[in-house]
Amino acid sequence: MGLRTKLIVEPGKSVRLGDIDPGFHDAHESEEAAKADFAKTTAELTELQAKLYAEKKHALLVVLQGIDAAGKDGVCWHVIQALNPQGTSVTGFKQPTPEERVHDFLWRVHPHTPGLGQVAIFNRSHYEDVLVARVHDLVPKSVWSRRYDHINAFESLLTDSGVTILKFFLYISKEEQLARFAKRLDDPARQWKISESDYTERALWDRYIEAYDAMLNHCSTPAAPWYVIPSNHKWFRNFAVSQIIAETLRDMKLEMPKPSVDLEAIRHAYHAAAAGKSA
Amino acid sequence: MGLRTKLIVEPGKSVRLGDIDPGFHDAHESEEAAKADFAKTTAELTELQAKLYAEKKHALLVVLQGIDAAGKDGVCWHVIQALNPQGTSVTGFKQPTPEERVHDFLWRVHPHTPGLGQVAIFNRSHYEDVLVARVHDLVPKSVWSRRYDHINAFESLLTDSGVTILKFFLYISKEEQLARFAKRLDDPARQWKISESDYTERALWDRYIEAYDAMLNHCSTPAAPWYVIPSNHKWFRNFAVSQIIAETLRDMKLEMPKPSVDLEAIRHAYHAAAAGKSA
Repeated sequence: MGLRTKLIVEPGKSVRLGDIDPGFHDAHESEEAAKADFAKTTAELTELQAKLYAEKKHALLVVLQGIDAAGKDGVCWHVIQALNPQGTSVTGFKQPTPEERVHDFLWRVHPHTPGLGQVAIFNRSHYEDVLVARVHDLVPKSVWSRRYDHINAFESLLTDSGVTILKFFLYISKEEQLARFAKRLDDPARQWKISESDYTERALWDRYIEAYDAMLNHCSTPAAPWYVIPSNHKWFRNFAVSQIIAETLRDMKLEMPKPSVDLEAIRHAYHAAAAGKSA
Repeated sequence: MGLRTKLIVEPGKSVRLGDIDPGFHDAHESEEAAKADFAKTTAELTELQAKLYAEKKHALLVVLQGIDAAGKDGVCWHVIQALNPQGTSVTGFKQPTPEERVHDFLWRVHPHTPGLGQVAIFNRSHYEDVLVARVHDLVPKSVWSRRYDHINAFESLLTDSGVTILKFFLYISKEEQLARFAKRLDDPARQWKISESDYTERALWDRYIEAYDAMLNHCSTPAAPWYVIPSNHKWFRNFAVSQIIAETLRDMKLEMPKPSVDLEAIRHAYHAAAAGKSA
């Protein structure tokens, strides 16, 4: 059974993060043991994306969500290493600007969705508007509660237009987050990132879990399912995401397009040019 | 003497590509010999960009130009591997769309320039409008000839706002291009890219060189100089570009910002939380 099947949030079935083990790491016992499979997946991803780019029949949108320190940046970096930057974009969605705030919540997202042949990675996304907005009461319940349907409709617009959507929720335990924050405290390269909100947000852990549960239950659709990625082990997190992307692209039966020109004729012309005649 | 000094197009001095050796590879005899220095540069780039991103005082714009097969995609891919995608974007500029065509030629470029803390890479750029536009007479001379000044003014707007601009012209010989095209003919993964224009464009080689010479002479300014990267050797091309970016970032004297919070207080709170008290 592939990781896609193991980690998917089955549309229509109820899921609770509380029932999922964030320390799960499947068949491999360690990063070392996963290394060879890992390298194979990365090489396959490179090849599949080259075909996606060339064929221009499909697009891929990867959405990353997760609590602070869950590893969204890490996954971005890891996945993108396998992909040609020419056809790949990464967009981070932070607190909306004043201009963004006067529009509907999907307005700032739409321009960054991938066109055919492209891969787009969202580091945070429109889901923030049913997460932080809900937990902090940034908008009334009457507003955020309608957003789940808006999101489903928006995502179905995309999938109808050839975009395959993979949504990954990176799931770490509260203890693992604390350990990562503590590590950050001793890392001079990352101390600047530490803010008071790191731990005021921690106090809201249960409300976040509640909001994540709601997001997973309302918005894991057949066209755009959610995957919960157990992320206490960074290597498993990266492996699982790469694996699921590869499995998904493989199913598209991507093909390099046929050359649009007569290769034999060009070959002759080149030989002539190389022999010193005019090209 | 650093590669920056060796490969810069000195503002104010006249340059001719005909006088430059596209097979130049400086001190290292081979890719193998350059390997250790290469790895060092890559690691340094990663560290410098992390500081650029954190400090948010500088921005970096990397512009890549070069004839077909000169290696723009290769450089993109190579350079980006060293950079955290969170603060990095790559934009390719192809033939303008109908919407882009009804605006000034810088309209489609401006939105993709980097903000403070960001690195943006342009794979082709606004320079196409003094290259392909000039060679193919897409606009009259009275139009393209004024664009050099428009470009210089635009780039000075950017540099005045904290953007450092590095412009790399990847220079290969006509023979090397032919060899690369010939190789592409036998590569099933890249045959789809081959078009008639590959060799109709080759017939215009001399006009392109003329247009490149003009671009280098008009637009290598003290604030935004051009570098000619000898690119017959792919490894040297990648090495030189990484080297020059690293030298440039090094000169910015980037510093990790100081933490904005009292680390000691937080450390105590974490210890308390880890010991089972409330966080």
